[in-house]
Amino acid sequence: MSEEVLLMGPGPSPVSQRVLRALSRPLWGHLDPRFLAELDDASGALRLAFGSSARLTFPVSGTGSAAMEAAVVNLVWPGRRVLVLENGIFGERLLAMAQRAGGDVDRRSYPMGSPVDPEDVRRALRARAADVVAVVQAETSTGVKNDVDAIAALAREQGAQLIVDAVTSLGGMPVTMDAWQAAIVYSGSQKCLGAPPGLGPISVADTALAVRPEGTPVQSWYLDLGLIARYVGTERLYHHTAPISMVFALAEALRALREEGLEDRFLRHRKASSALRAGLVELGLASRVAPQDLLPSLTVVHPPKGLDEATLRRELLLAEGIEIAGGLGAWKGQAWRIGTMGESARLGPVLRTVGAIARVLRRGGVQVSPTAASEAATAAWESAR
Amino acid sequence: MSEEVLLMGPGPSPVSQRVLRALSRPLWGHLDPRFLAELDDASGALRLAFGSSARLTFPVSGTGSAAMEAAVVNLVWPGRRVLVLENGIFGERLLAMAQRAGGDVDRRSYPMGSPVDPEDVRRALRARAADVVAVVQAETSTGVKNDVDAIAALAREQGAQLIVDAVTSLGGMPVTMDAWQAAIVYSGSQKCLGAPPGLGPISVADTALAVRPEGTPVQSWYLDLGLIARYVGTERLYHHTAPISMVFALAEALRALREEGLEDRFLRHRKASSALRAGLVELGLASRVAPQDLLPSLTVVHPPKGLDEATLRRELLLAEGIEIAGGLGAWKGQAWRIGTMGESARLGPVLRTVGAIARVLRRGGVQVSPTAASEAATAAWESAR
Repeated sequence: MSEEVLLMGPGPSPVSQRVLRALSRPLWGHLDPRFLAELDDASGALRLAFGSSARLTFPVSGTGSAAMEAAVVNLVWPGRRVLVLENGIFGERLLAMAQRAGGDVDRRSYPMGSPVDPEDVRRALRARAADVVAVVQAETSTGVKNDVDAIAALAREQGAQLIVDAVTSLGGMPVTMDAWQAAIVYSGSQKCLGAPPGLGPISVADTALAVRPEGTPVQSWYLDLGLIARYVGTERLYHHTAPISMVFALAEALRALREEGLEDRFLRHRKASSALRAGLVELGLASRVAPQDLLPSLTVVHPPKGLDEATLRRELLLAEGIEIAGGLGAWKGQAWRIGTMGESARLGPVLRTVGAIARVLRRGGVQVSPTAASEAATAAWESAR
Repeated sequence: MSEEVLLMGPGPSPVSQRVLRALSRPLWGHLDPRFLAELDDASGALRLAFGSSARLTFPVSGTGSAAMEAAVVNLVWPGRRVLVLENGIFGERLLAMAQRAGGDVDRRSYPMGSPVDPEDVRRALRARAADVVAVVQAETSTGVKNDVDAIAALAREQGAQLIVDAVTSLGGMPVTMDAWQAAIVYSGSQKCLGAPPGLGPISVADTALAVRPEGTPVQSWYLDLGLIARYVGTERLYHHTAPISMVFALAEALRALREEGLEDRFLRHRKASSALRAGLVELGLASRVAPQDLLPSLTVVHPPKGLDEATLRRELLLAEGIEIAGGLGAWKGQAWRIGTMGESARLGPVLRTVGAIARVLRRGGVQVSPTAASEAATAAWESAR
């Protein structure tokens, strides 16, 4: 019954056979020592990917947005001064969550397609001190990279706790939680890690939860990191039933990450995105993002002019078996978002995608050369560093 | 690497091969029309299991506790009068969530092992009206069934919104949301439905969310049912990335449920629990629950006297490959909790369990007859109705 789709959108990304096999292993219970060893193994690999030494590093039992909410509600409570740096839909989401948590929230907004401006952040923090600063490293709605190194330095100077959204970066580019001295960094399982959606890896600095005043419980019981720490830590106290099969899958995806090594993996993401971009340029599809702000995991371009972009994407999906995504929010109908994440960050999937886009464009009457696009992509793959 | 365990605890329950195969299908995207058809198919079968005609019926992207929190935070806000009926750990959890949501919360507590007393509930509601009444149908910490029919009638008389926890009941015994006129009923994927843990099926009455005052957003963005309705409904507006593989698994488990039929499935759960109890009685393990309060999905007994119960359970797990659970809270060390849920609600798993318990007891020096226990279980299976 399953018609296979090459998932080239901004996540979920393709899941390898070895991860699918792990997913379908017979279950162990959530307190079985063998399951707990799997969970610990996944946590260890997540620390590597997060650049984190934090004890409390584990997959939240929900998607990346659940991990985002866990980060926010554990650090934000009524009256807490929060500065949200927003340059897209996921910054907006952080803002909404911080407001719902009762924070005294300021925002700095930057145009979609532009990065957060650290100089502006410096001015904002001078104008009003913040207890918490929140930023998205890789904005999935626009394909823009934010300069977390610079923003983290400003948060440190200020003594503010830093929340970093690494949903579309973790496993595809450097995430350096310890160096940032971030309080909480979180991600999703279905992007550069190559597991199915449903888990939200998170890393919580050892002192991050200590500043909460007594008598102010985390508003979410399910996402109360202090409670969950008693299960994922050595105490093994039941909190909720861990999503066993998803943890098997994530642990296997992370074993693949360890075997490959982070640097080789980052290089592969850079090569794949370079190849994709070269092919798309050859097809007349220009980047919506400036060169210095590009992500290795996600490419966002202007859709083809003069054709209905949603119809083309539907044809790509149903006739070519390739999924890419359109724009979100103000960019609805105004962008194509194509991922090179995890298993899709390879030359083969990129060439299939470029070739399929060339075919649907030609069927739509656009004169493009599939061969030239493929050659440009291959050359870029080979020369990228 | 996988040593198979027969999961006879209170969930996760065993997952069938067909559901494991569905779990490992290559992924579709969360906006792919074929995936959305799977989600709709699962939602339709969930309505059947919930006895619900509610449009907003779907699996929450988290475990049963996430569904519990979704129910609570969407109906409870600061100042809302909530009556929580508590006779175990999961009632306690409802209470904690209602308090964290800012509710003006009253509780009525009943001893562990006893059911909620409807007459007492009537008195409590006379003494103070409630906007929301919350009760657990099948208390997973004690194996006690609460009389939701009677409690629902009282809530209706009062005009209170009713929340019912059907985590350990859904798919194993009647859940009749429409007849109860409940506002929200929720469950977990890993009990009587026979899917892995990680989803929290929920059904939300069409008018349940309409009473929230403007300007009081749901405190959780991730679990805001009004937002999620725009994705699972016809609008298909992206909210968060659905856990694709888990939805495949749940949809398949629910196809199996439809094929079997609810009545046959309920009968199978009654037969399996009768068989288990008869076998356990023969082994000298007495029920902690009175006959009229028994659940068809979960049997809770006194652990063997004079032996360390945790050691016996560990031996059952590691030497016999069978997982059962100990007690929670005040019953820690004081109870064995053995499930007959979904795939474990069959004679084979029950006989394996009874036989394995007999062996560990004999190794511990207790004189029991495995043959007699097995015969008693088989006879009970055959005579149960």
